[in-house]
Amino acid sequence: MSFIPIPADCDFTLANIPFGVFSTATNAAPRPCTAVGAHVLDLSILSSTVFPQVLKMDSAAKICESLRSTTLNAFASLGKEARVAVRNAVLEVTKNGSQWQGEVEKAMVRMADAKMHLPMEIGDYTDFYAGKNHAFNIGTLFRGPANALQPNYIHLPVGYHGRASTVVVSGTPIKRPLGQTCPPTNATPNFDQCQKLDIELELACYVALPSEMGTPVDIEEAESHIFGYSLMNDWSARDIQAWEYVPLGPFNAKNFGTTVGAWIVTDEALEGFRTAAIENSAETLPYLREERRRGKGVFDMELEVLVKPTGGNDFSKLFTVNAKNLLFSFPQMIAHHTITGCAMRTGDLLGSGTISGEDKTSVGSFLEATQNGKEDVDIGGVKRKWLEDGDEVLLRGHAGSGEGRVGFGECAGTILPANWGRWAKVQGQQKA
Amino acid sequence: MSFIPIPADCDFTLANIPFGVFSTATNAAPRPCTAVGAHVLDLSILSSTVFPQVLKMDSAAKICESLRSTTLNAFASLGKEARVAVRNAVLEVTKNGSQWQGEVEKAMVRMADAKMHLPMEIGDYTDFYAGKNHAFNIGTLFRGPANALQPNYIHLPVGYHGRASTVVVSGTPIKRPLGQTCPPTNATPNFDQCQKLDIELELACYVALPSEMGTPVDIEEAESHIFGYSLMNDWSARDIQAWEYVPLGPFNAKNFGTTVGAWIVTDEALEGFRTAAIENSAETLPYLREERRRGKGVFDMELEVLVKPTGGNDFSKLFTVNAKNLLFSFPQMIAHHTITGCAMRTGDLLGSGTISGEDKTSVGSFLEATQNGKEDVDIGGVKRKWLEDGDEVLLRGHAGSGEGRVGFGECAGTILPANWGRWAKVQGQQKA
Repeated sequence: MSFIPIPADCDFTLANIPFGVFSTATNAAPRPCTAVGAHVLDLSILSSTVFPQVLKMDSAAKICESLRSTTLNAFASLGKEARVAVRNAVLEVTKNGSQWQGEVEKAMVRMADAKMHLPMEIGDYTDFYAGKNHAFNIGTLFRGPANALQPNYIHLPVGYHGRASTVVVSGTPIKRPLGQTCPPTNATPNFDQCQKLDIELELACYVALPSEMGTPVDIEEAESHIFGYSLMNDWSARDIQAWEYVPLGPFNAKNFGTTVGAWIVTDEALEGFRTAAIENSAETLPYLREERRRGKGVFDMELEVLVKPTGGNDFSKLFTVNAKNLLFSFPQMIAHHTITGCAMRTGDLLGSGTISGEDKTSVGSFLEATQNGKEDVDIGGVKRKWLEDGDEVLLRGHAGSGEGRVGFGECAGTILPANWGRWAKVQGQQKA
Repeated sequence: MSFIPIPADCDFTLANIPFGVFSTATNAAPRPCTAVGAHVLDLSILSSTVFPQVLKMDSAAKICESLRSTTLNAFASLGKEARVAVRNAVLEVTKNGSQWQGEVEKAMVRMADAKMHLPMEIGDYTDFYAGKNHAFNIGTLFRGPANALQPNYIHLPVGYHGRASTVVVSGTPIKRPLGQTCPPTNATPNFDQCQKLDIELELACYVALPSEMGTPVDIEEAESHIFGYSLMNDWSARDIQAWEYVPLGPFNAKNFGTTVGAWIVTDEALEGFRTAAIENSAETLPYLREERRRGKGVFDMELEVLVKPTGGNDFSKLFTVNAKNLLFSFPQMIAHHTITGCAMRTGDLLGSGTISGEDKTSVGSFLEATQNGKEDVDIGGVKRKWLEDGDEVLLRGHAGSGEGRVGFGECAGTILPANWGRWAKVQGQQKA
């Protein structure tokens, strides 16, 4: 179908057409791109050569200009019509026999030669907690199954504001955080490096259309505010979290790093994989009832967690989770987030919360898999309760197969040793 | 001392020289300014006319360029040396007999003609909870005095990530939020407008120098990362908060609006008002011990809350609180915030948390003054438990007196009715 070769089991088929931002050794300026097979297509080039002729709409010049930017914010802010137009233009100019093949080839870069960047300038980052199985597993661990879910859980998408300054793109190393921990046997807290370093397997969405302060986004309009979806790993320091989080929620346990995949996959690509979210036993309030997408609020996608332990040669697949395991959809999260009048800006990032299935190999965190460090996880023969320095974590996710496969690519990060600085001397006895 | 008149009891004496961003009816471009008496001085003009001759340093051109921007971020990122140089230059060119009087007068705008803007582009906004008396008052209200403070409270500056998209400058109206509430007598939540709308009287600081992800800011360096201080009102929906905040902290109860004063007052201006924070019964961990400022971590400033009830003619002073009532200083908050390696960016905003004194008229919230709505507050003969639509809130704060007075100006906001939209029909019976 395309003159660009598409390897087997590739996330970037012609059914996908995701958006990202890349640079190369010969051109260090970050610029928008899409991915087809094992190639990146430079949209800043196409927007100067091919798109002005292919895009048949009044806003063509504006769309092309938005693609000559260092982030996807300007393009995203143009909304669905522009996004669909560019998607269709990419499909047209890359097909077999395309009159534009010569121009397209000038915009092709092998993926191995592309350095990927954070795709959007993120204003605010919010993390929800909509993975009901995850919330139930965690609640059971700390309060038992009868009180696992808080009374509010089924009525609203619980969430908290996260830290935008440390959202990084796949491949960025993560330093083990320092902080305060206070095991139950302690009278006073320790200063230590995190001993319970964990992952959180999440989906995320980016905001395309902004909303004004004081004006809630109606649930039926919420989907139109979404630019697309990405994989996310919300690294978590469980021992720091346990000591700090009452009463105002997680803070230092989360703010040291959050990794997003480099590719934003659009609703257009995922449309065919819509399915029902976890059934809610509560009748949701009207502002959270989406008629348009009723029964189709989430995506039937297989998400995976792989780890290569330090010194090892191979990644082992630890967990496989279906992305549909959410109690609330992203449009519901947006409707809830803005019901107070909270303003959304183009580029805002919303995480789903950790997604887990219903059994122990279908979880999105070590916290669940090891029962808070009481059991081992086997990684190709290596035992782990939590992540160690040098461990490499890789999240993947896709829907469909063959020519219809739509995937996120990789969301990867390696753990680096803690940065003790002068505190190694001051509190050497506490250093691991 | 200056040819610019300075009225009695003015916050903007020659001891102050705060920084802000303003525009005028005739020039709508936001630009940096300072305040002297009842006038704004346009620093973008002075940086083109007077400062190139007055600033005697290699970085003069860079400083001048930073002052021809739409925010203070570029200027703040140059650090203390640049800030002090501009402060001294303002003092020099505005003094009696200054050879620059003619040029300065061209840069003077009456404060009444200046429209003030958010002074910095805020990356992330974090709100702490360091007002120990406030935390004790709230804890006592919900758990009794014996368990008022959580075990972690005295060991670390408790904080949470806030919402940057709704931080607004003084004078911006605040719409009453809608949301979910669930009084203890309810089996399921209501959808309603907030019935317990409150203020939070806080100090805030802005980050000048950034720090890199993975590199904690040393406590002895933390103060150098601060640009200056401002008043802040972290509007709070107490009924929404009560239902949502377990386990991940306040979210919708806070994200509808946070008002900051228009003026950023520098450390140079407040230097003489340093005093001791509330004594901590715990020995803090070394990463939170600041030797440089030991015993002088906070400011001896009088903060005030005034309210003009809807339909009224006058503001009444409700509460007076000394700003020194904090358990942790801003440098301690920064050291804690970054100990995990969390990155700081120029323009990040950190709130102290609500500041309260030790008696009922010395509080920073209605929650404390009315004991969660059980008692009345008298506002010039008008009774209030919480804020009503049309109420105007005014925070003020200053240190010193006469020619040495240093103040923040106003941090004001008026409550507008909720934006019910189509939900007024759907749930009309629940509308107040």
